[in-house]
Amino acid sequence: MKKALAFDIGGTKIYNAIIDEHGKILSEVKKNSTPQDFDSIKSLFETIIKNYEKDVDVIAFSTCGAVNNKNDGIIGSTGNIAKNYPKMPFKELSLKPVYVENDANCAAWAEHEIGASKGYKNSIMLTLGTGVGGGIIVNNSLLKGKNGAAGEMHFKMYCDKRRKCTCGSWDCFEIYASGKGLKLTAEEITKNPDVTTYDVIAGVNHNDSLMKEAFDKWQNDITTGIIGLANIFDPDCVVLSGSMAEFVDTDKIEKKVNSEIVTTPTKIYKATAGNYSGMIGAALLALRPKGRV
Amino acid sequence: MKKALAFDIGGTKIYNAIIDEHGKILSEVKKNSTPQDFDSIKSLFETIIKNYEKDVDVIAFSTCGAVNNKNDGIIGSTGNIAKNYPKMPFKELSLKPVYVENDANCAAWAEHEIGASKGYKNSIMLTLGTGVGGGIIVNNSLLKGKNGAAGEMHFKMYCDKRRKCTCGSWDCFEIYASGKGLKLTAEEITKNPDVTTYDVIAGVNHNDSLMKEAFDKWQNDITTGIIGLANIFDPDCVVLSGSMAEFVDTDKIEKKVNSEIVTTPTKIYKATAGNYSGMIGAALLALRPKGRV
Repeated sequence: MKKALAFDIGGTKIYNAIIDEHGKILSEVKKNSTPQDFDSIKSLFETIIKNYEKDVDVIAFSTCGAVNNKNDGIIGSTGNIAKNYPKMPFKELSLKPVYVENDANCAAWAEHEIGASKGYKNSIMLTLGTGVGGGIIVNNSLLKGKNGAAGEMHFKMYCDKRRKCTCGSWDCFEIYASGKGLKLTAEEITKNPDVTTYDVIAGVNHNDSLMKEAFDKWQNDITTGIIGLANIFDPDCVVLSGSMAEFVDTDKIEKKVNSEIVTTPTKIYKATAGNYSGMIGAALLALRPKGRV
Repeated sequence: MKKALAFDIGGTKIYNAIIDEHGKILSEVKKNSTPQDFDSIKSLFETIIKNYEKDVDVIAFSTCGAVNNKNDGIIGSTGNIAKNYPKMPFKELSLKPVYVENDANCAAWAEHEIGASKGYKNSIMLTLGTGVGGGIIVNNSLLKGKNGAAGEMHFKMYCDKRRKCTCGSWDCFEIYASGKGLKLTAEEITKNPDVTTYDVIAGVNHNDSLMKEAFDKWQNDITTGIIGLANIFDPDCVVLSGSMAEFVDTDKIEKKVNSEIVTTPTKIYKATAGNYSGMIGAALLALRPKGRV
């Protein structure tokens, strides 16, 4: 049974675990705070790899940031991690093969292999968290684009500059469909700048009409984005993952989407590959048989 | 040299020609008005095929409507053509192999093989005509989705129901970026319900400020849509074709797109495969060597 030492690298935490070729986690999942600077991140990788590389066939990184088509490095910037992190020489960290992929792509792949989109050739995964991540699978392959940056959910919801997006542009899907989007929607409806996503969820549970209005608007915005994506991709299914996904009503979204699209009916699922889907997807990608792209 | 009898089937006209495996048109291009009913369309196909099939290797249809993944029939409805046209038994029309593909996909393939996107693995073609067509190429293959309906440019530009789209939903890219979209934008700006796209283009040429405002807004809407698509696909290039494409400023669009996207810089080109790119693409798809998808 082949095994990977898998990492999941985010702006605040770095996880690692040993995962086999079926996506099974064989070890304890270790968690570290993400160091502030490049050298400390690299040292952390080196220490962990030194401990485990003899026991595994490959090193598999699920990372924030877009990853190139050679799966050995990061292109562009990555938000809230050390500024020069994209220069990380992943391949040099081990004598074993090293594989790197974007975390949303890894999570989408985990869903495709062992999760909610298993058995489907064409799927879209949306990670609804603080931001929105996207991983798209076309004909059983990850959609990477010319340089590996595909799957960014920054298409516009309005063309008249209402909300500044984290990307610097305006009114992207991410700034409506994310947790931050829910907070902003609730702010607009309640006129309370201190309202939180927690307040909204609690309010919905207590039948608060303004909070329900905010929640419904947020869910409608997610639905609207999915309608566009379903018309572009004609996917078998759309998988919703991330911390905010647990609150949405997939049946309601699915009905609305299928009543509006001009392509053929699709399915909306919640993710099932679990909290460590990034590491699992990275391991499954790194360990997959040759010839599978 | 292998040859195809190629058709281009639209709601008003049906074209046919003989095209070789390099996309060269070898015959006169014949034009017929599209008959009103199913039987007459079928008879027209049969008559033309009877005349030419002995001289060709395949019959290649570029057609309105989404085409299935077996490339032998149409799924769903097709707008302004006989209602039961989707039931056309294309394979039964000839003893030679018959290949069917959506017209926008065919045109995108022609650009990919002999036109503006030649040499690029990942491209998006947008046909700006009365409506908007889309053909997307991912890793040198047409993006078809689960049933063949992918590439529909019906993602939303607004979420607050401003313009009814031809698809029945609201505010899709098509109803802003099309010729009809330009007319509607000009109507909104001039308050004149009789204004035409021709008036706008003529007005821009005569420095009419309202017409320039309408044109600029229309071009900005096209740009906004391309920003979303470029973030989703990280394409090498976006090709603009169709009757309205000649008026747009691709340099201006390219600069704006590349200043806003979070993926890597892309190119915006006008189509170069010509008026018969649908037939050419159908022929090239039907005649391409085995193993090429």
